[in-house]
Amino acid sequence: MTEIESYIINFAKKFDAFFINLLPKDKFSKRLHSAMNYSLTVGGKRLRPVFLVEISKIFGVSIKRAFRSAAALEFIHCYSLVHDDLPAMDDDDLRRGHFTCHKKFDDATAILVGDAFQSLAFEILSDKKTHPNPEIRCRLINQLSKASGALGMVGGQMLDLEAEKKKLNIKEILLLQKLKTGELFRFSCIAGPILSGEKDLKTFTKFADNLGMAFQIKDDLLDVEGDENMMGKKTKKDLSRGKETLISFFGKENAKRKSEELIKNSTKLLKPFGKKARKLIELTNYVISRNK
Amino acid sequence: MTEIESYIINFAKKFDAFFINLLPKDKFSKRLHSAMNYSLTVGGKRLRPVFLVEISKIFGVSIKRAFRSAAALEFIHCYSLVHDDLPAMDDDDLRRGHFTCHKKFDDATAILVGDAFQSLAFEILSDKKTHPNPEIRCRLINQLSKASGALGMVGGQMLDLEAEKKKLNIKEILLLQKLKTGELFRFSCIAGPILSGEKDLKTFTKFADNLGMAFQIKDDLLDVEGDENMMGKKTKKDLSRGKETLISFFGKENAKRKSEELIKNSTKLLKPFGKKARKLIELTNYVISRNK
Repeated sequence: MTEIESYIINFAKKFDAFFINLLPKDKFSKRLHSAMNYSLTVGGKRLRPVFLVEISKIFGVSIKRAFRSAAALEFIHCYSLVHDDLPAMDDDDLRRGHFTCHKKFDDATAILVGDAFQSLAFEILSDKKTHPNPEIRCRLINQLSKASGALGMVGGQMLDLEAEKKKLNIKEILLLQKLKTGELFRFSCIAGPILSGEKDLKTFTKFADNLGMAFQIKDDLLDVEGDENMMGKKTKKDLSRGKETLISFFGKENAKRKSEELIKNSTKLLKPFGKKARKLIELTNYVISRNK
Repeated sequence: MTEIESYIINFAKKFDAFFINLLPKDKFSKRLHSAMNYSLTVGGKRLRPVFLVEISKIFGVSIKRAFRSAAALEFIHCYSLVHDDLPAMDDDDLRRGHFTCHKKFDDATAILVGDAFQSLAFEILSDKKTHPNPEIRCRLINQLSKASGALGMVGGQMLDLEAEKKKLNIKEILLLQKLKTGELFRFSCIAGPILSGEKDLKTFTKFADNLGMAFQIKDDLLDVEGDENMMGKKTKKDLSRGKETLISFFGKENAKRKSEELIKNSTKLLKPFGKKARKLIELTNYVISRNK
């Protein structure tokens, strides 16, 4: 295991302990409570949270504040996974080697788990524990709601479902991926500056655009090349569904080269931050070196 | 048609014109855009919005501000209807005499429409157009997210689904209904005070508790007695599913009497507001006099 891999695993452990603790303490429906809990405890790399927290550190934001915003973001990500796995959507039985929520419970429960995660994300951000300044909390909520809505993640998932029925051109694939994955990555990169009171989000928006696209190319490459056991989920899904990806367009080698170029663009933007950005640069490089 | 009925219809017309205008202007997925639009244009009584706006008036809140909060609330209500109608949930083909979203489009689209409505609700509330004071926006978001989450509406819907498989006692039925319908009613009654900067929400929380329960009893009565054509949806649903309601517990006559008592409790709380509360009292009485 590389140093950065163990760094991320270590982060995920700490983050998960904090994250799961944000689930509602009361429980009116035990079933809903266990299904929410189950959907979190099956884990995840927590890549979006680790980016959010690392960038926050550069801006001098306290870990505790960064963790709360990262948790809100991860609740949105988790809800999208639970809903995307449903039979009506991508119809996946496994995620990270575990049964998906609707397989372990049922479809209705999975729909409600996703719905409750989304409310919880905004509840967390609206609380003064996230930041004492309500203006900053509102900025976070505004950005996260836009990133996840009809012109963000949800819009991207809709385009992705439509893509099973029609051939997309390269412009359409880029838009789909920017919405479906790019928007949440954008939030993970701008939350730190927002938490610090910074108004200018240009640098980290650019950073995120490059990062998000590189992440998506790597995900598509892993889908084509990846080992099903290593990935803990079905691979070669896009291929079997006849979906166009950047790889089916450019070919594997060009796609790989493109992702390296994107990561170079990202890390270049971090130069002004000098040594403070060392860990973030390692993380950024990891996005395309990872094997799962 | 009674005076209050035409007042509500007139309100709904004005509100709908404003409300639909809050849908995203851009559209990346035409399908998602039309499905969101469809789910709003099939209408609704807009009962929660009219309460929110009437109470806001008593507190001197401008109509424009009240409308935005009411729209956020109604987006949450609309998302819950779209998700509740899904085959995995209540499996309804018709609502207000029109095909439900998943019937008109498909299940995946309906799931995404609901998800996007939820994000949109919080996007609206986080915007400074809702109120210039970010502290007040955060209070609204905090209350609406709690009202709709695992310890609110979503938790109630889960209990409702579980109720198909087990007999509930009276305490459990009351909890289910408080969560499933009561919590959004609570928001509709406290948003006005919050928008005015009022800290003490006790009176309108009590008002809402009585109102929400009366509304639910009336809904159950309409389900038992109501005309399918008049209601525009299947009636006698609870009966056919063997679900316990307050009516199966108390009997029709006692339930009716209980609802009248609850409405009396509500209107009594409005006495200190004198003439200013006249319209609100009419509205409150309408909740149990309506025939659909």
